[in-house]
Amino acid sequence: METVMSIKNMTFKVGQTLTVVGVVKPDCKEFAVNIGPSEDRIALHLNPRFNTKGDINIIVCNTFEAGTWCQEQREKRFPFSLGKDFKIVIKFTPSEFEVTLPDGSTFCFPNRLGAQEYSFMSFHEGARIQSIEIK
Amino acid sequence: METVMSIKNMTFKVGQTLTVVGVVKPDCKEFAVNIGPSEDRIALHLNPRFNTKGDINIIVCNTFEAGTWCQEQREKRFPFSLGKDFKIVIKFTPSEFEVTLPDGSTFCFPNRLGAQEYSFMSFHEGARIQSIEIK
Repeated sequence: METVMSIKNMTFKVGQTLTVVGVVKPDCKEFAVNIGPSEDRIALHLNPRFNTKGDINIIVCNTFEAGTWCQEQREKRFPFSLGKDFKIVIKFTPSEFEVTLPDGSTFCFPNRLGAQEYSFMSFHEGARIQSIEIK
Repeated sequence: METVMSIKNMTFKVGQTLTVVGVVKPDCKEFAVNIGPSEDRIALHLNPRFNTKGDINIIVCNTFEAGTWCQEQREKRFPFSLGKDFKIVIKFTPSEFEVTLPDGSTFCFPNRLGAQEYSFMSFHEGARIQSIEIK
């Protein structure tokens, strides 16, 4: 089974910014950052895919609720490299997540679950997380 | 029940340094940083006590194994203040944890469980954790 790093009860609220720093593993096929109210509900699934599921170098974002994935949002900018470190900054506004990628480019993903704070995060294998900051 | 922030599968190995930044809550009686192999085994319990269990402004460290607390180690330096932020740096050497407190003072606590890496951390109420870094 996949080893997943997870954080419970680290509250991430509207108005705050989450910064995740890590290193992509040399053999990474994909990794993911998940933010939500609990393990089985994901408000933001941010999934850089190097080479998996028929995708090459694309970021797939989605929401997982009631046991189902919602509609995907795909971002073609892909400023990640195998074996290299990265920084992802996620600003939580009342209606969306504003994501800043390692090259400084940004995109938004709607806060479909609608809550004003989330307290569960997980980080799926493929990257080694070095630091997490909420400010 | 106490809300506990916990992190699973963020590996902390010999040779690495863990930095925890947070803010002491204004009404904090105590808070704790726990590091170990799992929820029920704690290699390092670092417990600043402002005013609880008959203790005032003291740091209590201990190990929890097989359902029991081991022998306490008490540190009289107490560079923490209610409502103020703090930084705790923990260096993991082969035999002990070298703890650097917010005033730059240090002490050591033996690695009684003897493992060379731990992957579970928890942070007990009384402080709001803002960032965690392993390098």
